Amino acid sequence: MKTYIDCFPCFTRQVIDFCKLITSDSETHEKILREALIKLSKLDMNATPPHTATQMYRFIKEATGAVDPFEKLKFEFNKFALDHLPMLEKELEKSSDRLETAINISMAGNIIDMGVGNHVSEELVRKTLLETINHKLDTQTLAQFKSDIASAKKILYLGDNCGEIAFDKLLVQELPKEKLTFVVRGMPIINDATMVDARQVGMDKLVRVIDNGSDAPGTILEWCSDDFKKEFQKADVIIAKGQGNYETLSENDSNIYFILKAKCPVIANHLGVSVGTSIFKGV
Amino acid sequence: MKTYIDCFPCFTRQVIDFCKLITSDSETHEKILREALIKLSKLDMNATPPHTATQMYRFIKEATGAVDPFEKLKFEFNKFALDHLPMLEKELEKSSDRLETAINISMAGNIIDMGVGNHVSEELVRKTLLETINHKLDTQTLAQFKSDIASAKKILYLGDNCGEIAFDKLLVQELPKEKLTFVVRGMPIINDATMVDARQVGMDKLVRVIDNGSDAPGTILEWCSDDFKKEFQKADVIIAKGQGNYETLSENDSNIYFILKAKCPVIANHLGVSVGTSIFKGV
Repeated sequence: MKTYIDCFPCFTRQVIDFCKLITSDSETHEKILREALIKLSKLDMNATPPHTATQMYRFIKEATGAVDPFEKLKFEFNKFALDHLPMLEKELEKSSDRLETAINISMAGNIIDMGVGNHVSEELVRKTLLETINHKLDTQTLAQFKSDIASAKKILYLGDNCGEIAFDKLLVQELPKEKLTFVVRGMPIINDATMVDARQVGMDKLVRVIDNGSDAPGTILEWCSDDFKKEFQKADVIIAKGQGNYETLSENDSNIYFILKAKCPVIANHLGVSVGTSIFKGV
Repeated sequence: MKTYIDCFPCFTRQVIDFCKLITSDSETHEKILREALIKLSKLDMNATPPHTATQMYRFIKEATGAVDPFEKLKFEFNKFALDHLPMLEKELEKSSDRLETAINISMAGNIIDMGVGNHVSEELVRKTLLETINHKLDTQTLAQFKSDIASAKKILYLGDNCGEIAFDKLLVQELPKEKLTFVVRGMPIINDATMVDARQVGMDKLVRVIDNGSDAPGTILEWCSDDFKKEFQKADVIIAKGQGNYETLSENDSNIYFILKAKCPVIANHLGVSVGTSIFKGV
């Protein structure tokens, strides 16, 4: 997916949000924002939005020396989501289609996205779970997904955010774990899950976990490690969580199933749906 | 009121909204946006937000040759608001305090602001009227306002937007019309009311109407005509409608009563209220 002009107010807002998380010094905010606007004035519209976001976050980290301002928030949302797993497991037990319910729970978890400016709160996550858990998935897509999973030799599950990664465990448990590799980002970026988070939620106890070697909030293959790229090429089925993975892989011709909440108007428009829609979509 | 860094995503969004209203040509959108970002990277944070907004709108008009892309929308919202006057006059007849109700109606009209990105619709205006018409104004401010109006020799009423200007007629009718001058912008800017709109809604049949000689979406005195500045200095009471007049006059020491809906987070924060709050405030 390319960058649209409507992405620019969001890039500008993300720069400000990130600066505020790093320091309360308004002179630093202003200095960085002015430089960021010049960079944004030159950006390549053919690159995906996560390309630009990565460059903005890198620039701000370099300018301020910040390492991971989201660290505490990520830890807390992992803990919050873990605390909800026993209740969600009970919901799975009651379900007539455990896989469908597990996809819905994992999809609801995608609301925990601190890049989109929707002020993630525990209340919002609970509300989204309630709204999404009984969502009726497209029958044909679900049947195809089940068939693809059954015949696959290798399944790659591209994770997205912290907190969400705990909910992903319930979906992983419904899949053939011996064939599945879970993927996290290679370095901290926004509130995206890294190996640290996979360990905090115990994903590494369930399945093999690897990182993609990159600091992008999505899967930009040319920036990923060679090891990851090999895994990607060998996979028969790829499960891609979240907006960033959708934005960066929507034109890839692998057998990808996207699971996300369409939280921004540009992505919703690209998908032909309204903001807030639950997406479970094969390519 | 100075410019805050949180104004920048909104400036960026306004540039895009204005470009889209002028042309559907995406190359023009992109070219103008890139230039606007460079201008924004250099802006004076000590200037008020309407200073910057004016410079942005001027630049886009010059670059595209557009004169007044809001013309049709302004005409339609004036008509829509005029159509509601008989119903609103009945509400005034039922009211125990006609002045308070007229202030509330005029305040509700301030929702018709096409600069703040809240997608003004007729439905939103009706909803805002319902929510606002019985709003309880601060007793002390209202008493002081009544007393100031009674003793004033000259009252200046600074209008804001189209549509809203029709609702302002009901408040003007409750005031001593012989002492009152209604002010419109000197040139088209966003959906702010000019002399054309004052005539469309018949404000000129009720009271003396002048323009301020400026193209700012607010009252930037140094950009206003000498005639207007004299009127401003001579006025004993100034009624200032809307966010733009608040942003540009919040530090002026005249006897100003601000009437507005706080529609943006930066202004709401400056006023110490939440977004959506009805404001009737003396200096």
